[in-house]
Amino acid sequence: MAGKRYSVGVDYGTSSVRAIIVDVANGNELAQSVYAYPSGKAGILLDPKDPNVARQNPMDYIDGFIMSVKGALKQAAKSKGFHATNVIGIGVDTTGSTPMPVDQNGMPLMMQKKFAKNLAAYAWLWKDHTSHEEALAIMEKANGKKLPYLVPYGGVYSSEWFWSKIWHCLKTEPAVFDAAYSWVELCDFVPGYITGNLDPHTLKRSVCAAGHKAMFSEKWGGLPNKKFLKSLHPKLAALRDRLYDETFTSSDVAGMLTEQMAKKTGLPSGIPVGVGAIDCHHGSVGAGIGPGIMVKTMGTSTCDCLVAEKVPETIEGICGMVPGSIVPGLWGLEAGQSAVGDIFSWFVQAFFAEEGAAAHVRLTKEAAKLKPGQSGLIALDWNNGNRNILMDPRLTGLLVGQTLHTTAAEIYRALIEATAFGAMTIVTQFERHGAKVKEVVTCGGIAEKNPMLMQIYADILNRPLRISRSSQACALGAAVFGAVVGGAYKTTPDAQKKMTGLKKEVVAPNPANVKVYKKLFTLYLRLHDAFGKKSYAGSMQALMKELLEIRDSARAGK
Amino acid sequence: MAGKRYSVGVDYGTSSVRAIIVDVANGNELAQSVYAYPSGKAGILLDPKDPNVARQNPMDYIDGFIMSVKGALKQAAKSKGFHATNVIGIGVDTTGSTPMPVDQNGMPLMMQKKFAKNLAAYAWLWKDHTSHEEALAIMEKANGKKLPYLVPYGGVYSSEWFWSKIWHCLKTEPAVFDAAYSWVELCDFVPGYITGNLDPHTLKRSVCAAGHKAMFSEKWGGLPNKKFLKSLHPKLAALRDRLYDETFTSSDVAGMLTEQMAKKTGLPSGIPVGVGAIDCHHGSVGAGIGPGIMVKTMGTSTCDCLVAEKVPETIEGICGMVPGSIVPGLWGLEAGQSAVGDIFSWFVQAFFAEEGAAAHVRLTKEAAKLKPGQSGLIALDWNNGNRNILMDPRLTGLLVGQTLHTTAAEIYRALIEATAFGAMTIVTQFERHGAKVKEVVTCGGIAEKNPMLMQIYADILNRPLRISRSSQACALGAAVFGAVVGGAYKTTPDAQKKMTGLKKEVVAPNPANVKVYKKLFTLYLRLHDAFGKKSYAGSMQALMKELLEIRDSARAGK
Repeated sequence: MAGKRYSVGVDYGTSSVRAIIVDVANGNELAQSVYAYPSGKAGILLDPKDPNVARQNPMDYIDGFIMSVKGALKQAAKSKGFHATNVIGIGVDTTGSTPMPVDQNGMPLMMQKKFAKNLAAYAWLWKDHTSHEEALAIMEKANGKKLPYLVPYGGVYSSEWFWSKIWHCLKTEPAVFDAAYSWVELCDFVPGYITGNLDPHTLKRSVCAAGHKAMFSEKWGGLPNKKFLKSLHPKLAALRDRLYDETFTSSDVAGMLTEQMAKKTGLPSGIPVGVGAIDCHHGSVGAGIGPGIMVKTMGTSTCDCLVAEKVPETIEGICGMVPGSIVPGLWGLEAGQSAVGDIFSWFVQAFFAEEGAAAHVRLTKEAAKLKPGQSGLIALDWNNGNRNILMDPRLTGLLVGQTLHTTAAEIYRALIEATAFGAMTIVTQFERHGAKVKEVVTCGGIAEKNPMLMQIYADILNRPLRISRSSQACALGAAVFGAVVGGAYKTTPDAQKKMTGLKKEVVAPNPANVKVYKKLFTLYLRLHDAFGKKSYAGSMQALMKELLEIRDSARAGK
Repeated sequence: MAGKRYSVGVDYGTSSVRAIIVDVANGNELAQSVYAYPSGKAGILLDPKDPNVARQNPMDYIDGFIMSVKGALKQAAKSKGFHATNVIGIGVDTTGSTPMPVDQNGMPLMMQKKFAKNLAAYAWLWKDHTSHEEALAIMEKANGKKLPYLVPYGGVYSSEWFWSKIWHCLKTEPAVFDAAYSWVELCDFVPGYITGNLDPHTLKRSVCAAGHKAMFSEKWGGLPNKKFLKSLHPKLAALRDRLYDETFTSSDVAGMLTEQMAKKTGLPSGIPVGVGAIDCHHGSVGAGIGPGIMVKTMGTSTCDCLVAEKVPETIEGICGMVPGSIVPGLWGLEAGQSAVGDIFSWFVQAFFAEEGAAAHVRLTKEAAKLKPGQSGLIALDWNNGNRNILMDPRLTGLLVGQTLHTTAAEIYRALIEATAFGAMTIVTQFERHGAKVKEVVTCGGIAEKNPMLMQIYADILNRPLRISRSSQACALGAAVFGAVVGGAYKTTPDAQKKMTGLKKEVVAPNPANVKVYKKLFTLYLRLHDAFGKKSYAGSMQALMKELLEIRDSARAGK
């Protein structure tokens, strides 16, 4: 037992942080502990006057590291032969883009008394949607002048991302902006904090966050140049000098755990901490991503990751293509859906709030009895905008095909199907540009809990679906990098081979269902293009009739 | 008191029949009695294998006349000075098109033992939707050959109407068709039965049912000619000889009450019975219809009636223009919505079935707090197809604008608004063709019970709304004709002037709401045309964004 070595993976989600302790030899999870952020509503600081505001308290991140790691160590201590001294490294992933304004020492501005009550001085959570106008202006400026910055993003920049948020802060809370020496992504803040290296100039910045959210690329020498930033606002150009020119992958060491953090958690001091990354990227590593395998992390929203040895210049609507952002040495491609589980939760909240979570079980049971197409319904999965391939937050939900006999379970199923059609637009987009998707691996709570949903996804994606063995793929991915920086493996794929895996079961597409869903997908695409693209110019007149025909065939058992 | 005279109005609805007894001098309702049809589900005979089937038992109509009139007389007897001998006439209205196959004596075929279990031998209720293909074929034949038959219907023939149903019977139940000597509309059957004059050749047929549902017009010598009918099926051409060449208005006498029916009900025998008509036509008379006044009968569906001294050749999508079908001497125009109250009932049934009718009260209360546009939602009112102006039963519901915060009350309000927008398409269509709508009078349960709905309608129609004084406008309209055939008045308008009226309250449009709803109506029309018309060719891309803009303005109180 003396030879056993462990790594720690710490995964910062939207409402809580989770630490796991893993045997680096085989990925076995010895222990885990979750710390729910105490601030705000489920960890989110809201503004009653503006539903777009979503901020977080950086103190929750610091406390969260200590409490979750301490908790996990306490639990691991029950395992025979475990000694904290055998932990060799730490990996960290977080939500993103979740930037926060910091002072010259890299400490969050909200820690200063004068900003303690100003939400702009807190962390701007990924799902903060205040910066819509800034995103539009960035797109106008970059694409209008044919600059290359948005080419890897398919020409799109999101209101959820780094520069949109910083610029919005500048416009609406100039005192905060002016007081900020620099801005730091959450996935850089945590490794920096626990290794005692928060100095904005030397802090090791994640290529994942930089590349996918901040228009960073070696092609143009890092962040967008000053001329471009000046065209947005002169102060943004000045800020560039206080940001970064260099980025790192998660197999790079961010620093060594400080004595203080070691004492507070019970970990050995001086162990290496990997450079952070955005949660679902680590999740895809924990789920065994490799060329041809798309990993779908499914939760309130989804994140779809793919790696490839080479990529085209641009793929329209893909959130970014960044070298090393997922697996060092390969291009990392990210796409995603802005609401999946959130749509089902909304439905239950709106109509069956009293029944609560049990409604999901009941509706799933009823919906499982339906055949594809039988309801005559089709929906768009845009209740939270679209960042599949349209990258347009100003889109909304749509349901068509209701009659006087439509049931709640039929609508529930149509919403699940809508999210699967949304997922299919991403697969189609990847493949259209040469990035093959042979297999889909799912992780996240929904995938494990709902076999009906999994079958619908297999049928609509028309690909076998497998499930990550670990139910904590993000934290496991972080632990993989903990093992790599700890020296247990030379490369990330080496570590993945030993530490990650899939459940045995394969959800295979049902050919009869595939056939019906192919028809329905053409209708989904027609709605998608009509409501999502300016260039669309057809009548929708046949759509309701085709839905009724598909319905009538399904009911007749044809 | 010796001079007091009374008339009886009998109104056959979808699930029950109602008789009222009215003072012909002033329309005061002395008594009323309702008889619920005992057969089937809420009076409707269903086929578990085909949701489109909706039939009724003609025995319920006969029993219904006796029971409802008897009940009303019993109640009227409590009124001081009332004597059944002072009843001077009877008027009858019914649902339609509700045709039934009859033998040579005019008796329903279902009364024959061999057809007692065959639903095709029963009455084909207006909302029977089995005859979709036949309706399409009739349109193809008539319009393709540029025949005039559908010109007064705006080129459209419905699956709910006379010939579609008869042809469908011929195709699917030839034994019933072959055994049928003739076919009789419910509104002709009842006066025929109670006056002992059911002989298909001498039975007085209603111009209302003939003109609005059976392509009857003096312009082409009555029903469509044999050549046309033969092009559908030779047996339909042969049937023409066993139908009718002449029609009558409701101020014409159908016959005199038989001794047998007098005995069974308690009415005096030999009193005149007016020729029947379709319910909402009599309803509009009972609500005081006249030139420029549109009467909306609002229930599960709606029927919109208008009268005019002259009309154009055709108005696209209007269910018919028939001389004398509403008020003898004026053109009668009919339009309608295939589901209004039914949509609200569906919503509650689908989502709040346990709460039941109380959900309407709760949702209305919550929805009343919302400002126009505030929800960001817009819906199409097509859950039961569209017979406003598109006349297409193969259309379905649509809801757009859902976010993760959308509430059930917001959707409930959007559905009410959708039905009002649907009503506005009818008003617009009438006016576009020179039939002015200066004022809207509503009747039917919904109008009286829901002030929020009335305000929404006033705001969207941008016209003052008034409510019929009588809550039983159809039955009152029938009683008006009972008074006319009984000799109390020379003309129908004379009788209306004395016997009908409006409630004092006027629901006036709110200018601020009108402004928002005008914007939303343009979006409704865009959806309406895109999903309802082949010729539409625009992108819908701006629609969701415009809804969000309207929403944001409404929320900001702009």
